[in-house]
Amino acid sequence: MLNKKVVAVIGGGQCSKEDARVAEEVGRELAKKGVILVCGGLGGVMEAACRGASTEGGITVGILPGENRQAANPYVQIPIVTGMSYARNVIVVKSAQAVIAIGGSYGTLSEIAHALQSGIPVIGLNTWSLSQNAQQDKSIIPAQNPGEAVDKALSLAKTNITKP
Amino acid sequence: MLNKKVVAVIGGGQCSKEDARVAEEVGRELAKKGVILVCGGLGGVMEAACRGASTEGGITVGILPGENRQAANPYVQIPIVTGMSYARNVIVVKSAQAVIAIGGSYGTLSEIAHALQSGIPVIGLNTWSLSQNAQQDKSIIPAQNPGEAVDKALSLAKTNITKP
Amino acid sequence: MLNKKVVAVIGGGQCSKEDARVAEEVGRELAKKGVILVCGGLGGVMEAACRGASTEGGITVGILPGENRQAANPYVQIPIVTGMSYARNVIVVKSAQAVIAIGGSYGTLSEIAHALQSGIPVIGLNTWSLSQNAQQDKSIIPAQNPGEAVDKALSLAKTNITKP
Amino acid sequence: MLNKKVVAVIGGGQCSKEDARVAEEVGRELAKKGVILVCGGLGGVMEAACRGASTEGGITVGILPGENRQAANPYVQIPIVTGMSYARNVIVVKSAQAVIAIGGSYGTLSEIAHALQSGIPVIGLNTWSLSQNAQQDKSIIPAQNPGEAVDKALSLAKTNITKP
Repeated sequence: MLNKKVVAVIGGGQCSKEDARVAEEVGRELAKKGVILVCGGLGGVMEAACRGASTEGGITVGILPGENRQAANPYVQIPIVTGMSYARNVIVVKSAQAVIAIGGSYGTLSEIAHALQSGIPVIGLNTWSLSQNAQQDKSIIPAQNPGEAVDKALSLAKTNITKP
Repeated sequence: MLNKKVVAVIGGGQCSKEDARVAEEVGRELAKKGVILVCGGLGGVMEAACRGASTEGGITVGILPGENRQAANPYVQIPIVTGMSYARNVIVVKSAQAVIAIGGSYGTLSEIAHALQSGIPVIGLNTWSLSQNAQQDKSIIPAQNPGEAVDKALSLAKTNITKP
Repeated sequence: MLNKKVVAVIGGGQCSKEDARVAEEVGRELAKKGVILVCGGLGGVMEAACRGASTEGGITVGILPGENRQAANPYVQIPIVTGMSYARNVIVVKSAQAVIAIGGSYGTLSEIAHALQSGIPVIGLNTWSLSQNAQQDKSIIPAQNPGEAVDKALSLAKTNITKP
Repeated sequence: MLNKKVVAVIGGGQCSKEDARVAEEVGRELAKKGVILVCGGLGGVMEAACRGASTEGGITVGILPGENRQAANPYVQIPIVTGMSYARNVIVVKSAQAVIAIGGSYGTLSEIAHALQSGIPVIGLNTWSLSQNAQQDKSIIPAQNPGEAVDKALSLAKTNITKP
């Protein structure tokens, strides 16, 4: 029954208008392709992506840091309540077969790092770039626009075990 | 958009035929009433409940302990990959507005305890009974059959914040 | 260098005078035997046990649920800050080779259950008793007084891998 | 009783000889100043730092990702067993008042990001550098050698609440 792909959209809980526009289009494109959208469930990029997915009838999952399901943005259909603060970042990326990062600050950077540590592909739109310390073969893959980001995410989506 | 209620079904990863029959009917009843089913995503009671919900077109979420989404039972539609081992038990119950416990061993007992600690109602079907140490007002609420368990879960479902 | 044994003392954040007296003596006995004391770091039984251990020059570790090290009771020497709320209960017991439970409510019950789930022995002093659902061979082991509890904990202390 | 400062040393589980040499000296310097050393408990930079601290009689804490305390490097005195895989990275940094990063790959990057997200100062020795997305005021603070890193860590060590 795991017949739908799952992609995480990560980014700041507050964001620029442009990042929000991009996130919303990413959400729409994912929903159009029948992909389940996972995110951290709060505002900014997360909310914009969920709003986009909802417009197209997609499924949205919000993995929340706090104790209160009501903290989810209004477009989250399935709230997961962790009460684990930032440790929920790990769950957001591990639950996805690919990650699309849009803008973001240190929380987003932690998610990018956890994804790369687990061998989950990360597609970037206007987000962090990593220094030369990164192994070249599995760093952030840049995309120019939402459609390209979604295409790359789906073509690279992991189908198997994440690394321990 | 949190317009659907969420109920967790907890119980052993291995279980008796009778517990499986009960869990499957609980899953069916939840789905008929439009409730999202959350569980630990593995076999036994979890699988039976998901199978029942699937029969009626319900939404099933499996919050997995390991690193591998493929470990989900075949009736999980939305796998959440935590990699956190038994700490995922906390997330299973916190994500629900009420919990239905069926049979189960120590893992189930930990989930019952976490739910009661967070003020989330627990309905029991052939499961643990708690000693006199428990405060009387918020312990396991017994049910005689799946239908009664689901009715009690929905009438008691928390609508608000879980306790810290 | 893992040459010291580690025992967890669990129990309520608020407790009776008698439970506090017992916890303090457990802490003293553990320290006299060179055992590292692990607990949840807060008040009640946890504080009393840490106070007892400190009296005898023992090492005390507090695994805190919140974000603030200052929440540790005054006798915690080594605060571990999880920010994971009740999910830290899992870490308290997994870090120990045996667990001594004193009084306690649902949080303590969750820790007892997690310990038994992981095959870590639990010694009980005036705490929960488990119903007949429990497999007889690995349930709570009763003790009559602090000295007996510490002796049993040390003789049963796991030396190896906890179960997955 | 929180009278000792706590500093985390983070870096790869495998590392170059030079990074190991630097980590060992950082461990020695921390121990000389009476600081508790927290790390992820495994090999590479973590082991070298613990070895250095042990040489000077310091206290070493290893916050382990797996289920087995025996996985700790031989210089860990106090093993914390999380069973939470990479989510333990969050605990490593939150438990510290300052973080010293040495070399490292994506796991280390996730820890740097979590620390900065929580407002915990990060001192870097031959480690990641962050792109211009980072807010300038609270990014990685470079050091030229172990002594300078320890001095900066101690002068910047947080004394208060980490951010939610």
